[in-house]
Amino acid sequence: MLTNIRLSDDRNSVVILDQTLLPGETKYIALSSAKELHEAIFSLRVRGAPAIGIFAAFALYVLSKEYASDSFDNFYDKVVKNRDYLNSSRPTAVNLSTQLDRMVSLVKKMQDSKVSDIIDAMHNEAESIYNEDVRMCKAISERGTKILKKYAASAATTAPIGIMTQCNAGPLATSQYGTGLGPILLGHELGMNLCAYVCETRPLLQGARLTAFELINAGIDSTLICDNMAATVLSQGKVQFIFTGCDRVARNGDVANKIGTLSLAILAKHFKIPFYVFGPSTTIDPNCKSGSDIEIELRDPSEISKMFFSKPVAPEGIKCYNPSFDVTPYDLITEIITENGVFTPF
Amino acid sequence: MLTNIRLSDDRNSVVILDQTLLPGETKYIALSSAKELHEAIFSLRVRGAPAIGIFAAFALYVLSKEYASDSFDNFYDKVVKNRDYLNSSRPTAVNLSTQLDRMVSLVKKMQDSKVSDIIDAMHNEAESIYNEDVRMCKAISERGTKILKKYAASAATTAPIGIMTQCNAGPLATSQYGTGLGPILLGHELGMNLCAYVCETRPLLQGARLTAFELINAGIDSTLICDNMAATVLSQGKVQFIFTGCDRVARNGDVANKIGTLSLAILAKHFKIPFYVFGPSTTIDPNCKSGSDIEIELRDPSEISKMFFSKPVAPEGIKCYNPSFDVTPYDLITEIITENGVFTPF
Repeated sequence: MLTNIRLSDDRNSVVILDQTLLPGETKYIALSSAKELHEAIFSLRVRGAPAIGIFAAFALYVLSKEYASDSFDNFYDKVVKNRDYLNSSRPTAVNLSTQLDRMVSLVKKMQDSKVSDIIDAMHNEAESIYNEDVRMCKAISERGTKILKKYAASAATTAPIGIMTQCNAGPLATSQYGTGLGPILLGHELGMNLCAYVCETRPLLQGARLTAFELINAGIDSTLICDNMAATVLSQGKVQFIFTGCDRVARNGDVANKIGTLSLAILAKHFKIPFYVFGPSTTIDPNCKSGSDIEIELRDPSEISKMFFSKPVAPEGIKCYNPSFDVTPYDLITEIITENGVFTPF
Repeated sequence: MLTNIRLSDDRNSVVILDQTLLPGETKYIALSSAKELHEAIFSLRVRGAPAIGIFAAFALYVLSKEYASDSFDNFYDKVVKNRDYLNSSRPTAVNLSTQLDRMVSLVKKMQDSKVSDIIDAMHNEAESIYNEDVRMCKAISERGTKILKKYAASAATTAPIGIMTQCNAGPLATSQYGTGLGPILLGHELGMNLCAYVCETRPLLQGARLTAFELINAGIDSTLICDNMAATVLSQGKVQFIFTGCDRVARNGDVANKIGTLSLAILAKHFKIPFYVFGPSTTIDPNCKSGSDIEIELRDPSEISKMFFSKPVAPEGIKCYNPSFDVTPYDLITEIITENGVFTPF
């Protein structure tokens, strides 16, 4: 399985698989300055809510090492400053702020300790965040495969179970297995007869570039489609489930996820296909009452009109509206599944 | 207004605006051989059901001139052979076969005339097909603007009327004005306060490349979005109507149109937004009982994974499913509007 994020051997940089180069090039890059680390999140070299959280924790640890000889007060100021800077790289994913805040809380709690001990503790905390994610992904994937097994046990045919997915909620977005993609990858490992329909996920094509890459690597029968083909595929009876990840879950169960999720959820309702959302419990935001409280990141119009293309595909001067996420109301979702079980609104 | 298709001055070739080069380059090309004319349809240099019909009629005329000194029987054989060859360039649009058959019928009817007279009559017939399309588009556009005017008269605000559209059903797809886009272009000319939301329409991006180009040229306030953003825009109350064209209408009112239409129709139903289909009466196929009788063209997978991109955006070996059209059931459509009025299933 792909390794996505790790510390360098000297622990002075965070090493990531540069996802902007996939699927053509598998290149690892080592990042050590605050600017490089911020840019890696902003430019989606590392992406996916859990992966961003893990990366940010490692990043804050790496940056804190520069201030090992400072007084606690100076050290703490620098940590907070770096937290705020890293946190400003993307607005929507809650894991980024959650994991950064967790690191800062640890530092604050240890204010009577030696700074060098605090730095060691930050390293352990970042490793814990990583390992918790490994366990979380495994638990979510197992819960997802149970849904698939239950369906397979009662299915009238031995045809492969078709699962539609979009964006990337696989190992590249997490530590291992992933969330939305985890049940497919684990189910395949367990010998289940599955096939995947991957929505390409415009404008940044994470489905085509990343999810298709993960599925092909795992040897799973996979078909790539454009986002506007989903309705046709769903109308053909080839898809039994839609599985996605999530970037933020409000208390009432509204889900912010990659743009296109809302459309798939409405299509799923129309075609009576179960629509499952998978995500770590850290994605649930207790401060967020409903979907209308979720800030939606608007990204550069040129991602629609120019990025990836050999020449611009839209005329000069056209306005482009580029929301990176959408909000799917809870009533369109069959179940939201975390490592702890089925989410209940609160 | 753009001129899309015309005969060259010597009438030995068909001159078209090469739509594969838009929006970056406005280049006219003259086509005279059967191979060139066939390729222009197949490769979407000319596209849109009405435009293909007009083009094919001019093409068959141009090709027939080569056989001016043949006997009628030989001449007729060549015309039929060229009809079949041109007709094989794309399977879904009914106008292609309808207009070609109309030209062949004319030839057959004139079997006792001189071949040179038949060729002159073919020229007149092709011009008639063009001029009928001009009148058809104008009539459809006027019917569409009436719908907009009726809404504006009863609207509570003076905010612009938002109209979402996809693919290209504008002047580039027809002779003038277009069908699905016609009411917007004509409404703007009449001074109405309109704005357009253009779905880019993957994989071939006709919305981004062609419709956005036409709207910007006409000076209409337009916003380009990716297809998977439509649900979000529709949820925001900015869109009062969805207008599309159509490639084939079955007797029961099921509509084959550019892939993505079905998805928009389902979203429109969910958000209670009127969904109108505009098309010439020639798009109605009396031989087609329902949508399930419509053959859907499957196109090259590389249109999804490679075309337009500076490097492949999907991993080697991924399967791509690339249906060019989808079928929208009649019950999802508010009204189908032709130049003669509202379509009634028969």
